Amino acid sequence: MNIILFTQNEITDGISCRITGRRFDHIKRHIKGSVGYRTRIGVIDGLIGVGEIIDIDNCSFVMRIELGISPPEALPTTLIMALPRPKAFRRIIEAATSIGIKRIAVINSSNVEKSYWASPFLSNEALIERSILGLEQAIDTVLPKITLHASFERFISDELDILIRATKPYIAVPHANTTADYCNSTSTTICIGPDKGFTPYELDRFIDKKFIPFSLGKRILKVEQAVAMAIGKIVA
Amino acid sequence: MNIILFTQNEITDGISCRITGRRFDHIKRHIKGSVGYRTRIGVIDGLIGVGEIIDIDNCSFVMRIELGISPPEALPTTLIMALPRPKAFRRIIEAATSIGIKRIAVINSSNVEKSYWASPFLSNEALIERSILGLEQAIDTVLPKITLHASFERFISDELDILIRATKPYIAVPHANTTADYCNSTSTTICIGPDKGFTPYELDRFIDKKFIPFSLGKRILKVEQAVAMAIGKIVA
Repeated sequence: MNIILFTQNEITDGISCRITGRRFDHIKRHIKGSVGYRTRIGVIDGLIGVGEIIDIDNCSFVMRIELGISPPEALPTTLIMALPRPKAFRRIIEAATSIGIKRIAVINSSNVEKSYWASPFLSNEALIERSILGLEQAIDTVLPKITLHASFERFISDELDILIRATKPYIAVPHANTTADYCNSTSTTICIGPDKGFTPYELDRFIDKKFIPFSLGKRILKVEQAVAMAIGKIVA
Repeated sequence: MNIILFTQNEITDGISCRITGRRFDHIKRHIKGSVGYRTRIGVIDGLIGVGEIIDIDNCSFVMRIELGISPPEALPTTLIMALPRPKAFRRIIEAATSIGIKRIAVINSSNVEKSYWASPFLSNEALIERSILGLEQAIDTVLPKITLHASFERFISDELDILIRATKPYIAVPHANTTADYCNSTSTTICIGPDKGFTPYELDRFIDKKFIPFSLGKRILKVEQAVAMAIGKIVA
């Protein structure tokens, strides 16, 4: 936890806020902070600043806060990924958020197990919780926008064009002969298939939409590795 | 589990082997394999081939095996990393192995918590177990060589020169102005610091050894993300 984040609603009177729960535990147990302790704070989807503990009880701190620093630049990258195993999905949301991605579209594929779509990890609360872990890692405040698309066809025909507009779209394909250029000047979209890969039909639909195939080597990678490697290759 | 791996010792008579434990559970429960089931197999540090179940009891299969395919090419990359949190360390060993890294040196830093070095995850058995998970993912058989260096000074003065000989050495440094070139023609060494970064003194020691600093962006990344992104950027 490299920053203590809270919502606008938790600011009680414009200059102080009450810190509870996991954040309280972190400061109390790990940092042993008490009255006078100062630390980096931020408002979710808002500014970064400094907080100082001015009061304390059994389960909360009151902090006086000063805000004034903008959150770090976002990565100009949209991530499209086929829904992976839910436990991996949670970690990927956290990792992608920490890397600075602000737009994630989670899509279906014939090679995604249907049961994954029923996972509680896909609830809005769970997604926000995981994204916040990524923001805390990266000292950021801006939540990514995450959308779920359980119909592949509808995603391709109705939503993809708008999503990739004004970006350079890439798709990771095992054994592709092309390597992606390093490209941090332009907005990019990176599309990563499921563990078993997209079907040839699905791949063709992306190629029709002018996605550029690129390779991450010949090995079968987990989606987690593929996402981070692709970001490293193309934008970071 | 994209391949069933076993040791040379498990080959009973040159043409068959007995599959037990986790591998048995995988085939029995997830794949519902029984007599006649054929699957991809490999000998650890040896060849890949096909196995067919010819006998079965409550806790093991006997497979007739045919071997003949070489394991995939290794990544010509040495990974040096400061010891991360043990749970993350386990995942990184698995991930790095799946990506194809065959040489990993785990080193100390003033910013590594001393207690990490006492973790049971650093035992030889634990390292092999994790590496095998990575090999199973990537359809590979060749275990990485992993060495532990609890003294930073001794590592730099006595071991680093030999380790990086004939490789192009890179070190990830937050805010470095240089970006690493994509470089898959040469052997490379990639050095990743601890979550809190190397100390300036430690960094200087690597720069003295001609390590080229490169940046993965301005954010504070977890070691897991940094490793995969660095591999994506430089070699994959």
